[in-house]
Amino acid sequence: MSTIINRRDLDFLMYETLGLDSILATERYQDYDREAIAAILDLAQSVAEEQFQPFAGHLDENEPKYVDGKVEIIPEVKQALAAYRDAGLFLTGYDQDLGGMQLPWVVHQALNGMFVTANTGVSSYAFLTQGVANMLHACGSEPLKAKYLPKLVEGEWFGTMCLSEPQAGSSLADIRTKAEKQPDGSYRITGTKMWISGGDHEMTDNIIHMVLAKVPGGPAGVKGISLFLVPKHRVNDDGTIGDNNNIALAGLNHKMGHRGTTNCLLNFGESGDTIGYLVGEENQGLANMFHMMNEARIGVGAAATVIGLGGYLYSLDYARNRPQGRHLTNKDPNTPMVMISEHADVKRMLLTQKAYVEGAQALILYSAKLLDEQKLATTDAERTRAALLLDLLTPICKSWPSEFCLEANKLAIQILGGYGYTREYPVERYYRDNRLNHIHEGTHAIHGLDILGRKVRMHDGAALKALAEEIQQSLTAAQSHPELGDYCQQLAAALSKVEATLGAIGKAPDMTLALANATAFLDAMGHVVIAWMWLKQAQAALDGLAKSGAHDQPFYHGKLAACKFFFKYELPTAIAKFDLVAELDDTFVQMADTQFIGS
Amino acid sequence: MSTIINRRDLDFLMYETLGLDSILATERYQDYDREAIAAILDLAQSVAEEQFQPFAGHLDENEPKYVDGKVEIIPEVKQALAAYRDAGLFLTGYDQDLGGMQLPWVVHQALNGMFVTANTGVSSYAFLTQGVANMLHACGSEPLKAKYLPKLVEGEWFGTMCLSEPQAGSSLADIRTKAEKQPDGSYRITGTKMWISGGDHEMTDNIIHMVLAKVPGGPAGVKGISLFLVPKHRVNDDGTIGDNNNIALAGLNHKMGHRGTTNCLLNFGESGDTIGYLVGEENQGLANMFHMMNEARIGVGAAATVIGLGGYLYSLDYARNRPQGRHLTNKDPNTPMVMISEHADVKRMLLTQKAYVEGAQALILYSAKLLDEQKLATTDAERTRAALLLDLLTPICKSWPSEFCLEANKLAIQILGGYGYTREYPVERYYRDNRLNHIHEGTHAIHGLDILGRKVRMHDGAALKALAEEIQQSLTAAQSHPELGDYCQQLAAALSKVEATLGAIGKAPDMTLALANATAFLDAMGHVVIAWMWLKQAQAALDGLAKSGAHDQPFYHGKLAACKFFFKYELPTAIAKFDLVAELDDTFVQMADTQFIGS
Repeated sequence: MSTIINRRDLDFLMYETLGLDSILATERYQDYDREAIAAILDLAQSVAEEQFQPFAGHLDENEPKYVDGKVEIIPEVKQALAAYRDAGLFLTGYDQDLGGMQLPWVVHQALNGMFVTANTGVSSYAFLTQGVANMLHACGSEPLKAKYLPKLVEGEWFGTMCLSEPQAGSSLADIRTKAEKQPDGSYRITGTKMWISGGDHEMTDNIIHMVLAKVPGGPAGVKGISLFLVPKHRVNDDGTIGDNNNIALAGLNHKMGHRGTTNCLLNFGESGDTIGYLVGEENQGLANMFHMMNEARIGVGAAATVIGLGGYLYSLDYARNRPQGRHLTNKDPNTPMVMISEHADVKRMLLTQKAYVEGAQALILYSAKLLDEQKLATTDAERTRAALLLDLLTPICKSWPSEFCLEANKLAIQILGGYGYTREYPVERYYRDNRLNHIHEGTHAIHGLDILGRKVRMHDGAALKALAEEIQQSLTAAQSHPELGDYCQQLAAALSKVEATLGAIGKAPDMTLALANATAFLDAMGHVVIAWMWLKQAQAALDGLAKSGAHDQPFYHGKLAACKFFFKYELPTAIAKFDLVAELDDTFVQMADTQFIGS
Repeated sequence: MSTIINRRDLDFLMYETLGLDSILATERYQDYDREAIAAILDLAQSVAEEQFQPFAGHLDENEPKYVDGKVEIIPEVKQALAAYRDAGLFLTGYDQDLGGMQLPWVVHQALNGMFVTANTGVSSYAFLTQGVANMLHACGSEPLKAKYLPKLVEGEWFGTMCLSEPQAGSSLADIRTKAEKQPDGSYRITGTKMWISGGDHEMTDNIIHMVLAKVPGGPAGVKGISLFLVPKHRVNDDGTIGDNNNIALAGLNHKMGHRGTTNCLLNFGESGDTIGYLVGEENQGLANMFHMMNEARIGVGAAATVIGLGGYLYSLDYARNRPQGRHLTNKDPNTPMVMISEHADVKRMLLTQKAYVEGAQALILYSAKLLDEQKLATTDAERTRAALLLDLLTPICKSWPSEFCLEANKLAIQILGGYGYTREYPVERYYRDNRLNHIHEGTHAIHGLDILGRKVRMHDGAALKALAEEIQQSLTAAQSHPELGDYCQQLAAALSKVEATLGAIGKAPDMTLALANATAFLDAMGHVVIAWMWLKQAQAALDGLAKSGAHDQPFYHGKLAACKFFFKYELPTAIAKFDLVAELDDTFVQMADTQFIGS
């Protein structure tokens, strides 16, 4: 079996659960039908399994090194990225006007996932580059695009995003990097950027940094942030590589996981002029960066999901082949041992992983479909609705998989026992890799504040209203299956609980108390949304059962079991969290610094 | 501040919560009073902070290597263990008749903890050796003890426990290592042992392995397991080192964490005779090994706890000194940033860590005190009662901290953000180290089966009855503080829930269903016991508040806040789990292998 993708499940999610056929029937995607998409996925899977997966462990053990001011990376990384480029895979997410394949984003997202599972460290270079290209396409001036975009789209140059600084991570308001306008309209960039993935290496002729900086004299805080394109090497007007742009590699960060992607501390303008070019307008930098950030945030959740998937598939395969112990009712040590997949607690750990991972996967693909719907919308109202839903779901897409697919990885290790704890098996690497996802592109807490402090209230609660309507549609549709009645009731009650919670929050005497449990709200909202995804899957499974032969029955029964698990074991924990949020509990905010350990 | 121990809290737990004074007042411990114990803890803390802690990260990055059939370990490890030995610290846990310091076990346990926090990898060598010595003392013949025990007690030779084999981890019934009796009464040992911590190195003149093996012709399964002392080098009658005993190092395991302790695959009797000596009787090996295993299991929980503590203290110190962002109500970016310890979500993560870590620490020290009480008991009834309680609590001591102090470490990383995810800071190492503790000395699932399938029922439920009585005593005592009334009610209700759950389990149609949710029962029982520990601490805090001056007030208020958090946010999750266990939910056991991903 493949340990990076379950294609049967992917088809189930795309076609049976999310109705991708209706997307494929549109003019925009007329080049694609199920067969064409299967062929592209086949190609991607073979590149991922043959060119990415084999050296993922080796890369983890041989992280990029700082040697004489340069980054040394094992040669397999460049080779894998060349294979990815040669197969045309850099182009899956772009529209045809950019020379791209114009695949539905759902398919592009699913396809990307295989590379993350196969080799997280390598895949980051490609996805960062795609994010930079999309942002430049959306916000850049025509001359800037003409000069830089084709090379990024083709994957000849790679891209990065440079937001954080050593003293400013979550608090972007406090960045200090300066951009001083020059007579020729370019800017001189000075400052230090931290945590820059792909920030320096020798694998491409150039690296295009998207840098947040402040133009002196502008407003304080986030309102004074501008966005600049800053190349590692300057580019001549004829497109050839020019002078070095004086971005000094000050050091590499050595992480617990994600070791395959070089992660850098960069000094701009320290040893000579570093020239940058404004992207969009001055002081609009944060909004422009969010073109990339929102994509990156869903990308983080997508990565967390498929790293969870990797652990699930690997531990399932292991459990089916590792004999250990006997059934509890068999006390005869002379009988053969059974495979551990027969033990109840191993089944628990597998089903829990399945419910988390496939639930998260459904959400990620649903969100990708919203992007497709934005593009396909024929009215402003449709477009706005899809955008609102996506805005509301983004913090959940980013955070829920980070939390629960990490938990899945923890269980994958447990299934392998002592073996799972060694670096001979990939599951501990998944666990280390996945721990990053709570942190980057906005911490868990930041997304809690985002959803509870902003997203659920924006435009008079329009996004939440749209989400509630979508869920209500699923509830109505599920009425055709009486077996789903209890789940529908539970989900409807959870939705009421969300509204009641927000009502209580609205009456909070101050913002600090209202948002004191924002993280719990975020997690709980995630559970509601994932429960909804499981209801959709259960309905699709029942539909499938009615139509399918014996061969497909176990697959559909597995879906129903995972849905049952999620509603029985997981959703109630969300209800308890909403109650805590709603009562404006002040246990945390009341805690004084001196109370933690005394003095 | 120290980042390995909070001495104020340790004193609070030992004296104010657990009443160590009554132990110190006994004849057995008459050499010790509070001052003497503080002096010993001071000594241990300085050795741990000066000799162990400084190179913990360096050791993690430079794990033992296999070179020409031998293990190479960085020299700091041997030096640290020499400093530990020179300070007399190998002797803290032994009675005076063995040349030990005869410290109360509570103090010994607390003292050991500092070394685990400071440098887990190094501490293991010492604690394994102490465990082997205690087992040999309890089960070995006089000649065997005369020959081996003094060297182990003094820490001149180190010890190991050899249970697992590549094909037999959890399923000890299936070990294959053979022990064939020789005419001189010794045994020839052949077989392969896996996951042997400290299994080979050059730091001591000898290594004493305690090996489980089967004598041919004995009963099948665990009833045919015997225990052998097997030295790396044979020992002449005059105590000098003799011939090599032919234990071949077949390889090292490379783990995610715990990298400082060499972990080996050992072949016995492959290249020549390996001689072993029976410890105890033939076929009584498992029971004898459990002298060490139970100590080791509590040791695992104790280690998980103090690794959690290390993350808590480090992240607290960081949070107090890292400026980032502003209060939510302050939108002026020109004002200075505040320390992150002022943000509600950081407080949440600190308080959660505190509640987990200090709750677990209370349980570990309570259990250590039960060991002291066993030794101090003047009647069989007292002795039996302490032993029963300890038996019941052992799976909880092992498992609960493994689960929840790992969760604490996850939060410590989150507080440090991107920095926490790098190897420049210790918190990611704690997280990696702590992930082992669910696995070794019996997996989480094994302990679930142990407590629900055996411990709660043994001797007609006598252990659980004793635990219920102890909790009831605390409830009665807490009546003097009306502030604790709600907690008392909640805890009493949880206890009833335990009994109701066991009643429902008793009616299960078969064992498979009865034990299907044993792991959930284990976790939930852990929450009940930790809630009890928090009630005890809250009572002690209220007593302390009444007596103390302004300086100590924040410490006690912090204890009350952690207790509030645990009863409000945590204990209800246990109630939900008991309900699932009680209804004999079959979601997991019904899951067929083919249903996970289809085919």
